[in-house]
Amino acid sequence: MSLEQLKKEVLEANLELPKKGLVTYTWGNVSGIDRDKGLVVIKASGVAYGEMTVDDLVVVDLRGNKVEGNLNPSSDTATHLVLYNNFLEIGGVVHTHSTWATIWAQAGKAIPHLGTTHADYFYGKIPCTRQMTEQEIEGEYEKETGNVIVETFEGLKASYIPGVVVNNHGPFAWGKDANEAVHNVVVMEEVAKMAYRTVKLNPEVKSIPQKLLDKHFLRKHGDNAYYGQK
Amino acid sequence: MSLEQLKKEVLEANLELPKKGLVTYTWGNVSGIDRDKGLVVIKASGVAYGEMTVDDLVVVDLRGNKVEGNLNPSSDTATHLVLYNNFLEIGGVVHTHSTWATIWAQAGKAIPHLGTTHADYFYGKIPCTRQMTEQEIEGEYEKETGNVIVETFEGLKASYIPGVVVNNHGPFAWGKDANEAVHNVVVMEEVAKMAYRTVKLNPEVKSIPQKLLDKHFLRKHGDNAYYGQK
Amino acid sequence: MSLEQLKKEVLEANLELPKKGLVTYTWGNVSGIDRDKGLVVIKASGVAYGEMTVDDLVVVDLRGNKVEGNLNPSSDTATHLVLYNNFLEIGGVVHTHSTWATIWAQAGKAIPHLGTTHADYFYGKIPCTRQMTEQEIEGEYEKETGNVIVETFEGLKASYIPGVVVNNHGPFAWGKDANEAVHNVVVMEEVAKMAYRTVKLNPEVKSIPQKLLDKHFLRKHGDNAYYGQK
Amino acid sequence: MSLEQLKKEVLEANLELPKKGLVTYTWGNVSGIDRDKGLVVIKASGVAYGEMTVDDLVVVDLRGNKVEGNLNPSSDTATHLVLYNNFLEIGGVVHTHSTWATIWAQAGKAIPHLGTTHADYFYGKIPCTRQMTEQEIEGEYEKETGNVIVETFEGLKASYIPGVVVNNHGPFAWGKDANEAVHNVVVMEEVAKMAYRTVKLNPEVKSIPQKLLDKHFLRKHGDNAYYGQK
Repeated sequence: MSLEQLKKEVLEANLELPKKGLVTYTWGNVSGIDRDKGLVVIKASGVAYGEMTVDDLVVVDLRGNKVEGNLNPSSDTATHLVLYNNFLEIGGVVHTHSTWATIWAQAGKAIPHLGTTHADYFYGKIPCTRQMTEQEIEGEYEKETGNVIVETFEGLKASYIPGVVVNNHGPFAWGKDANEAVHNVVVMEEVAKMAYRTVKLNPEVKSIPQKLLDKHFLRKHGDNAYYGQK
Repeated sequence: MSLEQLKKEVLEANLELPKKGLVTYTWGNVSGIDRDKGLVVIKASGVAYGEMTVDDLVVVDLRGNKVEGNLNPSSDTATHLVLYNNFLEIGGVVHTHSTWATIWAQAGKAIPHLGTTHADYFYGKIPCTRQMTEQEIEGEYEKETGNVIVETFEGLKASYIPGVVVNNHGPFAWGKDANEAVHNVVVMEEVAKMAYRTVKLNPEVKSIPQKLLDKHFLRKHGDNAYYGQK
Repeated sequence: MSLEQLKKEVLEANLELPKKGLVTYTWGNVSGIDRDKGLVVIKASGVAYGEMTVDDLVVVDLRGNKVEGNLNPSSDTATHLVLYNNFLEIGGVVHTHSTWATIWAQAGKAIPHLGTTHADYFYGKIPCTRQMTEQEIEGEYEKETGNVIVETFEGLKASYIPGVVVNNHGPFAWGKDANEAVHNVVVMEEVAKMAYRTVKLNPEVKSIPQKLLDKHFLRKHGDNAYYGQK
Repeated sequence: MSLEQLKKEVLEANLELPKKGLVTYTWGNVSGIDRDKGLVVIKASGVAYGEMTVDDLVVVDLRGNKVEGNLNPSSDTATHLVLYNNFLEIGGVVHTHSTWATIWAQAGKAIPHLGTTHADYFYGKIPCTRQMTEQEIEGEYEKETGNVIVETFEGLKASYIPGVVVNNHGPFAWGKDANEAVHNVVVMEEVAKMAYRTVKLNPEVKSIPQKLLDKHFLRKHGDNAYYGQK
């Protein structure tokens, strides 16, 4: 895939966010990576979605050096790069302040897996990172945000739980490309909403049984998937 | 009615789901049956609603053999078939992961009948199935989902309570045809929303009196109905 | 005003309901009265809003005799008539099953006056009727629904509290004409929503002080009003 | 900037309110000031947003004398003027009865700073004014509403916390111009919504750490800002 094609995909993925009702003003950003070239395409900082074009995208390398583009990249670029550098199976990353995922982040709680909707996409709870230390906040803050996500995923498979809520902040999600990352963050918003209401309706509710989690996740993912037209 | 006419009806009923805000991405499916021919028309698996045409529908017989269509039928087809084979008065079935009905499913609770809106359509609470056993989940899962619904309706009249929430999962509804099934699932979503908020507002709330339930349900259904233009 | 003009107003007022998001399917009805002629124009029963025209309206006299129209009038006509016969200052009536007002009805609770938004339109809490007796339900149910509203307003001024929630059922509202009735039911829905969330946020919240209620209501109503361009 | 240009800005800012879903009917008003001329442009009282033009704006001086316009200015004009006279750094003011901010006002509670979304715009909690006294309500009510806001901001920097909820009433916000004032009230609505749900999800939740508040607010405001394209 050419870099121009990747830019087009990343642009479309960014424009999907307001269509799905996930962003207010300029809050949110999507990136995609060309693993062969080691280049990441990401939304510029503070750009409005209404009039966005490929010229509002920036190309950076995996150390954050700007390779192409007239604008500053998203202030969250360093977070995206840490994820690309550590989760080698992912091709796209998204960050939003979408309402329902953000309330779990603000509450400092993982989003529990309470139904098959969740299980179809996330193989277990969507974790919440620990609070960041004063040193991390005062240091390279956006990079440390990535590091605390990576720390949270120790022992977890990023492709099996393609998202996280960052404590006091909001959701990040990812996928095999920018489009799938956005798809996953849309699902995260929906399951975050349903989980909130479920725990309010039944405070004693338990996670769905492991067998049901296995059934639904593996029906759609992995070698034995039989959902859809594959 | 010809099979082509049935396909058109089932297509329209499927397209009604996103219009009513009940589906995210491909979640949900509607089917309709031709009782004379013993054939069921159902949405194909994993197809997006935006570009759906009659070519995205599949025809199966009541044992699940594909009779027509190029695609795989919905992964929930076996559940639909169990309902058609057991609830002989129904002509359409719908399944969604709509937000409000799903939270009752996730909470493992029946949707209580708290007002006349509910009583106009459902003659009592909308039941929640028991959790499925490990054997059921590991076996013919989608068929067993249908079986557990049928088990839940022992002693109940499917046409008087045209819907159910499947534990840990979400709603199924039905009607005399695909269109009425969708109508009923839209109503279920609305009464699920109002029931949630009502119990949060007044945790001691009771079901509406039996006389009022009778009055409203029988005003619209059965031989003495006088609502509308009949 | 001619009867044709009144029909046009009542049609527009009915069509306003789906525009404001207050109705699902055919739930809801608006009427208007010509006091000189003693005639009430009301929506026909079970008619969908999408294709509604003046031909879907029915004219009845104040005893409920049909004077004009091919269809059956709304099944709630008898309730409207009781209100016109008892609240002589009103010219329009509306009934819906709108979500937020209905949850107060289902919870069996009056909507408390917690802010100036409420005070701008309703001079005190919006009352909830008592539950109806078995005799009332089995008798002339829709007429008795009107009677229980009138009973609830003993000692209250209908034009100062232009709405009510009927226990187990939903809201009725009224105004000097059909248009104002709908305006008031839209406001009722909004204050019902805010009141629900306010009491969830602060269960100890009190009604707004009497002085503030006076100030806001009387700023907009009565001889000393100074809001708007009057 | 000419007065005509200011009118255009204020008109656009007013029209932004219904676009963002913040107003029902005529509830809400935006103003902007020309500090050099000492003139304030504000929406007329009780005007509907649908058909609003510059002719529905009124120009007043800082003592409230009408300088231009055929209509009465918003009944809240006196509140706006107190804010302009006391918060010398602001150029635009907005008032709405938007749902989520209003429930905090009705609950009599400040909106706590629970996440970085809040911290990006408001440098600490959004305060709630004390209840007004009977004398204040019976006196120059709208002016006293402004005074109680100013009293609440003793020791606070209006440009660092560009909004407030007025007890029993609803939100006011401001900014360097009318457009920014509306931007801030949109953000306030969003953080009010997320704060409500966060405290319902985790009643023990604490404000975000001071370091994180500093980081996010100062990343976007003040001399060391690095967000966006500056």
